Amino acid sequence: MRVRAEPHFPPNHPSSIPLTVSEQLAAFAAETEFRHLPEEVRAKLRAHLLDTFGVALAAVPEQFADHARKAIGTLTPRGRSTVLGASEAWPAAWAALYNGMLAHGLDYDDTHAEAVLHVSTTVVPAALAMAEEANCSGPEFLAAVALGMEVNVRIGLAAPGGFHDRGFHPTGVCGAYAATLAASKALHLPAEGIVHALGLAGSQAAGTLEFLGDGSWSKRLHAGWAAHAGIVASRLGATGFSGPRRTFEGRFGLYRTHLGDSPWDAAAVTRGLGKEWRLLEISLKPYPACHMTHAFIDAARALRRREGFALEAVADIEADIHPRAVPVVCEPLADKWSPRTDYEAKFSLPYTVASMLVRGHVNVDDFTAEAIHDETVLAVARRVRYRADESSQYPRYFDGTLRLRFRDGTVWEHREPINRGHPENPFSFDEVVAKFTANVERIASDAAAKSLENELTALPLRNSLSPLQSALRRLAAEIRYRETT
Amino acid sequence: MRVRAEPHFPPNHPSSIPLTVSEQLAAFAAETEFRHLPEEVRAKLRAHLLDTFGVALAAVPEQFADHARKAIGTLTPRGRSTVLGASEAWPAAWAALYNGMLAHGLDYDDTHAEAVLHVSTTVVPAALAMAEEANCSGPEFLAAVALGMEVNVRIGLAAPGGFHDRGFHPTGVCGAYAATLAASKALHLPAEGIVHALGLAGSQAAGTLEFLGDGSWSKRLHAGWAAHAGIVASRLGATGFSGPRRTFEGRFGLYRTHLGDSPWDAAAVTRGLGKEWRLLEISLKPYPACHMTHAFIDAARALRRREGFALEAVADIEADIHPRAVPVVCEPLADKWSPRTDYEAKFSLPYTVASMLVRGHVNVDDFTAEAIHDETVLAVARRVRYRADESSQYPRYFDGTLRLRFRDGTVWEHREPINRGHPENPFSFDEVVAKFTANVERIASDAAAKSLENELTALPLRNSLSPLQSALRRLAAEIRYRETT
Repeated sequence: MRVRAEPHFPPNHPSSIPLTVSEQLAAFAAETEFRHLPEEVRAKLRAHLLDTFGVALAAVPEQFADHARKAIGTLTPRGRSTVLGASEAWPAAWAALYNGMLAHGLDYDDTHAEAVLHVSTTVVPAALAMAEEANCSGPEFLAAVALGMEVNVRIGLAAPGGFHDRGFHPTGVCGAYAATLAASKALHLPAEGIVHALGLAGSQAAGTLEFLGDGSWSKRLHAGWAAHAGIVASRLGATGFSGPRRTFEGRFGLYRTHLGDSPWDAAAVTRGLGKEWRLLEISLKPYPACHMTHAFIDAARALRRREGFALEAVADIEADIHPRAVPVVCEPLADKWSPRTDYEAKFSLPYTVASMLVRGHVNVDDFTAEAIHDETVLAVARRVRYRADESSQYPRYFDGTLRLRFRDGTVWEHREPINRGHPENPFSFDEVVAKFTANVERIASDAAAKSLENELTALPLRNSLSPLQSALRRLAAEIRYRETT
Repeated sequence: MRVRAEPHFPPNHPSSIPLTVSEQLAAFAAETEFRHLPEEVRAKLRAHLLDTFGVALAAVPEQFADHARKAIGTLTPRGRSTVLGASEAWPAAWAALYNGMLAHGLDYDDTHAEAVLHVSTTVVPAALAMAEEANCSGPEFLAAVALGMEVNVRIGLAAPGGFHDRGFHPTGVCGAYAATLAASKALHLPAEGIVHALGLAGSQAAGTLEFLGDGSWSKRLHAGWAAHAGIVASRLGATGFSGPRRTFEGRFGLYRTHLGDSPWDAAAVTRGLGKEWRLLEISLKPYPACHMTHAFIDAARALRRREGFALEAVADIEADIHPRAVPVVCEPLADKWSPRTDYEAKFSLPYTVASMLVRGHVNVDDFTAEAIHDETVLAVARRVRYRADESSQYPRYFDGTLRLRFRDGTVWEHREPINRGHPENPFSFDEVVAKFTANVERIASDAAAKSLENELTALPLRNSLSPLQSALRRLAAEIRYRETT
């Protein structure tokens, strides 16, 4: 094992050997604490933490989650880390696996558009599980989350779209590194230990897009498996089990092995690190559906709220959408009118718009097998047409215009220029809380949701995670009560 | 989730939908039992089982193993699966992780040359750990091992050299699937469950060659991580947690994502499945060093045994070697004369040949920090030269000719046309046992080695793994005794 003095941040160290990318990330992570985070980063963190817990808890009743709980129950005895929505606790590696699957399970979790990856879904579960084992304070846990999110975005930004081009799923692949960094920070590793852990994560990073072929559940596994890998890598790195130092930029590092001929720029990972916070660019999802449908759903919401709106008087519905988005959410139109699975419904502009027009919402429960076969909604979905709109700002913004033609010839139109949840059209904190509350109330009482919200927002003041753990246990006890009655 | 009747093997089923590669593998695995294995496969299995336990146990005193034990001790409470060389047991996922690292840890484990992967190192640990939890009989465990080995080789043979060309390490990547199949068989999964498990393994398969950059320990992690993934995937698949059916040949399956433009042939995975056993082609390693050195070490052994041999009378030593092997084990010659690490010594023709000429052996202990700086050996190593030999049969055989020139002008020459351990120049069973015994005696008594040998060879007759577990526990108790005295 090569021995080297521990690197310092900022990297103005006297050594003539330039630091590797992971050495720079490790030094930054080792030296950055919650008190160093700018106020806007703290505010962003608060919103994304609420959001991640909300979308994860909303997934607890799903069938995949039930299967995962059963499987993990055969894989491990009890431990100390919280299993979301369950009364037992598991060792950190398994809690992270399960909670990661939950957080990504509804495709309702936050996203960095340019890096094309889901961000918090791998980081929060790894940080939480390890923070519980390592007895972190609230600020220590939050620092681990912020650093993991920031690094996740940056690893993806070195090759925007490149992983997808080769069939890899960056949420899993980049997420393994980010979860490792978050878990290592929660475990209080020095920079040298983080370098080893990141190097080992490079031997664990996995996930392909093959789930697209048959809609199987492996996509959900990706976020959990990355979080699981992060716990293992950080525990190995803590002992000095060595990993490659050039795991990002090396001859057989992440980018050369996973990107083929796509361009990449490993220097982008660390450019402006600690000065620019790229996590500020992460979007929240207002609806548990494809990002490309969101502007149209919000346009439908706006039109529905206009005085005099009467659905039965609508003759047809027209969407103006960028041509590159058409094959994703509009074609084949007959299929999009009658989605067969939750996944197809999440990628149907007609179905999601119709759900908003008919029900006034597009929630998790609007994608159950029963909901997607609701003939009232489907009748409205079949009235949806689209026009290719070259003036759309896609992919910079996922914008959209919706036009209702009434039987009397009247036309109402609404345009959403920037999809809500985008950093330039962000959720208000009230909107964040409303989404969180609606998600948690899928499985628990309003009081339990409020208590969890209070504990999550109080984390900067907590010298222990116990109050948060208690709030999560109380919430889980309600679910158990329901199951047994 | 697509519902489909469980496929049957042989695949002459009436359905008009062709089975996917993983459906064919799953059907074959679900229906093949130990009693179906040809005698030559059983004999091969016996040899490779002994070999794998031997090389794994020999690695127990290594520093990486100590670090791994400490890390895993923080990751899990106790369980039921054997931890090789230790008195405690862990849950299957963790025992598989550790035992896999051990089995690959000395680079002394079996290899399929054309598939360019280590075979048993991922399969045996996964099968053993799950077989213990699932209370398998000896023949059930052996069937899981045989099927995992066979499938491992076949997955690699669909793209010989292709994974390496892109910087992936097939021992880890293909090994995740093989470990999954072996663990699924030990868990008695029906074909449908194995299909899901294999699909999930495609989201876990990982490992790059970046360890080559600095000799860090991630290579050892690969075999363990693949075995660990196999346990998790099989437990998830058992619940019906769904994975992609076209995980090998799909648009974003293993081959398209990991091979870039290298050719591959997914049909090769199942061609002749159940009729031809490709596991018969796996080589055993006579020495814990690069395969390309083996013929030369054996030539040195033969010359040393000739009557009248006197090392002090040797003026120089000349090796005839294929030009493509030169950069791996002969150049830069000055570095090969004076290796700085165990890894460099394992890839040095001069050092390994000198060890045989001076010591009469090339064992695990001949690569310790002390051993590789032994001036008596290094003085002989510095007398080694090489000549490029275009007549070499490399890479079909790793052949070699060694020539000793004595001070009196005499020249002795010996040629090894096929490296020993190659299927066309196989180990005798006595040689297998001798290697096993030497490896186990690194850490335990002759009696403990003999007892373990007896239990491993008796497995076809055992209706429980308890006697094997007892033999391993007794052996581990000796190590503990030594440590505390």
